Amino acid sequence: MNFRTDLALERKEYIRKGELDGIKEEKKEVHGVYVTTITVENEKGEKLLSKPKGKYITVEIGSFMKNADLFSDKLTALSEELSSLIPKEGTVLVVGLGNEKITPDALGPKCISLILATRHISEEFAKAIGFERLRSVAAIVPGVLGTTGIETAESIEGIAERIKPSCVIVIDALAARSTERLGTTVQITDTGVSPGSGVGNKRNRIDKNSIGVPVIAIGVPTVVDAATMAADALQNAGMSEEETERLLRSYEENELMMVTPKEIDNVIDRAAALVAMSINSALQPDIPAEDILAIVS
Amino acid sequence: MNFRTDLALERKEYIRKGELDGIKEEKKEVHGVYVTTITVENEKGEKLLSKPKGKYITVEIGSFMKNADLFSDKLTALSEELSSLIPKEGTVLVVGLGNEKITPDALGPKCISLILATRHISEEFAKAIGFERLRSVAAIVPGVLGTTGIETAESIEGIAERIKPSCVIVIDALAARSTERLGTTVQITDTGVSPGSGVGNKRNRIDKNSIGVPVIAIGVPTVVDAATMAADALQNAGMSEEETERLLRSYEENELMMVTPKEIDNVIDRAAALVAMSINSALQPDIPAEDILAIVS
Amino acid sequence: MNFRTDLALERKEYIRKGELDGIKEEKKEVHGVYVTTITVENEKGEKLLSKPKGKYITVEIGSFMKNADLFSDKLTALSEELSSLIPKEGTVLVVGLGNEKITPDALGPKCISLILATRHISEEFAKAIGFERLRSVAAIVPGVLGTTGIETAESIEGIAERIKPSCVIVIDALAARSTERLGTTVQITDTGVSPGSGVGNKRNRIDKNSIGVPVIAIGVPTVVDAATMAADALQNAGMSEEETERLLRSYEENELMMVTPKEIDNVIDRAAALVAMSINSALQPDIPAEDILAIVS
Amino acid sequence: MNFRTDLALERKEYIRKGELDGIKEEKKEVHGVYVTTITVENEKGEKLLSKPKGKYITVEIGSFMKNADLFSDKLTALSEELSSLIPKEGTVLVVGLGNEKITPDALGPKCISLILATRHISEEFAKAIGFERLRSVAAIVPGVLGTTGIETAESIEGIAERIKPSCVIVIDALAARSTERLGTTVQITDTGVSPGSGVGNKRNRIDKNSIGVPVIAIGVPTVVDAATMAADALQNAGMSEEETERLLRSYEENELMMVTPKEIDNVIDRAAALVAMSINSALQPDIPAEDILAIVS
Repeated sequence: MNFRTDLALERKEYIRKGELDGIKEEKKEVHGVYVTTITVENEKGEKLLSKPKGKYITVEIGSFMKNADLFSDKLTALSEELSSLIPKEGTVLVVGLGNEKITPDALGPKCISLILATRHISEEFAKAIGFERLRSVAAIVPGVLGTTGIETAESIEGIAERIKPSCVIVIDALAARSTERLGTTVQITDTGVSPGSGVGNKRNRIDKNSIGVPVIAIGVPTVVDAATMAADALQNAGMSEEETERLLRSYEENELMMVTPKEIDNVIDRAAALVAMSINSALQPDIPAEDILAIVS
Repeated sequence: MNFRTDLALERKEYIRKGELDGIKEEKKEVHGVYVTTITVENEKGEKLLSKPKGKYITVEIGSFMKNADLFSDKLTALSEELSSLIPKEGTVLVVGLGNEKITPDALGPKCISLILATRHISEEFAKAIGFERLRSVAAIVPGVLGTTGIETAESIEGIAERIKPSCVIVIDALAARSTERLGTTVQITDTGVSPGSGVGNKRNRIDKNSIGVPVIAIGVPTVVDAATMAADALQNAGMSEEETERLLRSYEENELMMVTPKEIDNVIDRAAALVAMSINSALQPDIPAEDILAIVS
Repeated sequence: MNFRTDLALERKEYIRKGELDGIKEEKKEVHGVYVTTITVENEKGEKLLSKPKGKYITVEIGSFMKNADLFSDKLTALSEELSSLIPKEGTVLVVGLGNEKITPDALGPKCISLILATRHISEEFAKAIGFERLRSVAAIVPGVLGTTGIETAESIEGIAERIKPSCVIVIDALAARSTERLGTTVQITDTGVSPGSGVGNKRNRIDKNSIGVPVIAIGVPTVVDAATMAADALQNAGMSEEETERLLRSYEENELMMVTPKEIDNVIDRAAALVAMSINSALQPDIPAEDILAIVS
Repeated sequence: MNFRTDLALERKEYIRKGELDGIKEEKKEVHGVYVTTITVENEKGEKLLSKPKGKYITVEIGSFMKNADLFSDKLTALSEELSSLIPKEGTVLVVGLGNEKITPDALGPKCISLILATRHISEEFAKAIGFERLRSVAAIVPGVLGTTGIETAESIEGIAERIKPSCVIVIDALAARSTERLGTTVQITDTGVSPGSGVGNKRNRIDKNSIGVPVIAIGVPTVVDAATMAADALQNAGMSEEETERLLRSYEENELMMVTPKEIDNVIDRAAALVAMSINSALQPDIPAEDILAIVS
């Protein structure tokens, strides 16, 4: 398993049959949308999948490029899966990871610009403008280590200590193995995240251990590593795993390269809108999604 | 004194002669640049100037619009004034206040994109790339309350507790009384700042009291309140202070209006570059400004 | 009449009663929206209003800031007024004037990004994707003289000669006298436009004379001249016209200043969406506005 | 030769030895920069290289990412090669092709924002501000067919007919075969261009035939086709040309994918600055490049 991917679903495909000890998989169709939940149950599963213990929910939403319709069953399906993981009470801190100046890495920051922040709105004012129940939400873009000098985990910890959220939701761009996944799949997990896995390098993990409250990560694959793509081409051509690995070493310069859809700017815009609105809907179930969109956009 | 201004220099102009008890003023010319230092010495001065005790250094840099030359005596003068206020040791946290989506309020965020963050660079690596002494610097854009749900003061406090800076530098757009000040003046103070005074509303003060370490604020006026401008026109036309105040009440709708240079986008870009580079130079005196610019841009 | 305004409606307010020879005014309420049509009938009217002969339709749409709902009676009213001026057959060339890098001047370029261009779509393909009748539309942003070296009129003439439109629609930001008009009024005229009147200087007129086909201009006021605003304050304070004029000369430096809403970025975004969608609806009456928006955004 | 590339240099590598009839190649080192000139001399050469008759000058400038220094021998080398192709008299029309909303395709529009347009500046004014000789330059961004409804060739023809340039320079992003070429090579040719070859589809050719004056194209490779990259991996692994072609058919979905550097936003910014400044220097040899940069940025 030398292919880089942040999707539990893709990692599982490379485990040999009969070896699924510690890993559970459930598939369902909700509102016409395919949802796969992979649960890593124990250390055995962690080793097999190279992913920490917890749930990995994959929602297949098809091509964003061909469907601009935001208020669809995709939104409902995503929102429901998210709701199942979010505590019912307390402030939720939503965090957009990634670098807004690198298009395929800008998913997180773009999402945050569409999240309805409400923590500063008093109950009286909320009622006065017609919102009976408004969940307390804060939304931040911590920036990347290279430009802030601060690990994302440090920023989130510092702010979480101040505002005491009951849960943190982090949004990040992911890397996939297959180009078919780009912009067409959403992964939701209760295991947190290692910032920068989408485009840059691994950083301090952001999860319940480091932050002290549940950390839900929601991501969309936006890039395939160039080396991974070349390896795929070789294996599809019948080359052995060993031979592929040997050849890949000659592709090291390609670590600076990524594969993205030609329409990546559109893919990011649409994925950001869908993810942000599914978070908004999960957090404010009493406000129609259309009304929230009118406020944030 | 009903005119809105964030500049101590402009406030002082409206104090009657002989009343300057508790306020000290010094003028000098450094590298051909005019520098005025107003010191509020005690509570009497605080009341007279409606500004907290401390130093207010005004550097008159002339029109940014007519001079694109960044590496000039203006930069040197600004950098020297800043240096006199910054502790010699420890990490410096640079914070860009304001809303990057409202052009005249975007000075802070634009500056941060040009600040050289170094806190994550190890001493070994710094030496390996030829930097003998690299001051530890972190740089953040906390965002505005309306979109984050978090007071700027809370964000800074949370992050400051984590990274333990010896000093915080906040950058913000200011409001002036006179349109001639827009983009032509820099104010540096050791008294901290009330976020949002440039375009929005007053928030929790960010200063040594709230953060626990010295807070230096650096700002450039980018707007004049429309009501202030109208009042100025009336007083220049010989109208009495009382009459002006009465008439101004009819300009309340103008609180939604601001006066800016037509070239505001250019003014912001150039002011941001000058302020950011003067901070970089003050923090990394051993690295030539041109080299820093090549790294950050 | 020394106040600068691009709105025929505001100019008319300053003509003395009984002097309206050559100027006709009609008011109506359409879909709950106020529409005023001023017709300059002859040279006498041209002199009185300082505006060329033709129709000036003003649609009062209220504050964009408080109403994000795009698909409303405002859209219908605007679309109907536009339709009454556009020839029924032939290609329509839509042109966005102004400088996209100066926020209040960016209305035209922002609109163009939301115009459905169709001239390159073959009839067969249009039918294949379900559009029985697709009006041929081209959409361009010619840029400003200072950055292109080409008069906007020259660019439009050159392209119009190639693509032979039956009509040109130009979109531009306007200057108003009253801050209450900013972002709340749309002016539609069949007399063309002088580019750059919104923020910059007058250029070669773009109208039926210069282009050879009808030129419809649609504009939204986004700025008030700082000098105009000061003059208004003085006259409201009871100062005579002569005295005001004398004092205004001392405000010449303010020609570099403009008054805009503090929320100007939002005002521009919303005005651009409304104007673009009203043009799209007028040009493609058979396609629901929501479907067009899904394609262009 | 099934690999897609816009670089004559890369195409030539795939021609078998001894078959170079009609193609001439010269290599030189200028200011430490490698320059290769391939001349397609006749129809035989056109068929071999699948490129029209004319000169293809390749300047190898190394990685933009590692060298932010704009005013270097690279700039001098590029500027000199350009100068050799540009007529000495008359207005030059500089055109930025591509879609500014798709990062790797935005090279042309980004360049234009840094081109010094002078056609509107009178000789008297130029002298008054200290420029004895100012070459007449116009600079436009015609936009892409999908959003304008107008072929780029039509726009350029229409404007060229108005302003009668002595020469047109078009700037476009290119596709390469090798990822090593991305952002490190500039190709200059006197044969014009087929717009959209960088990321989109082929359009009407823009050259001396269609425009009536010499058309110089200058481009930087910013993408590799995903299918081309996969094919390269296969051939490097020893697969035969026929086998590779057969396998590539299964990669058709990858036509929607592209390979770019992870730092593509930086690559584009730096390439745009270098290309724009080399054009500015070639057109205004009497003005120091630093002075031009101070005006346009």
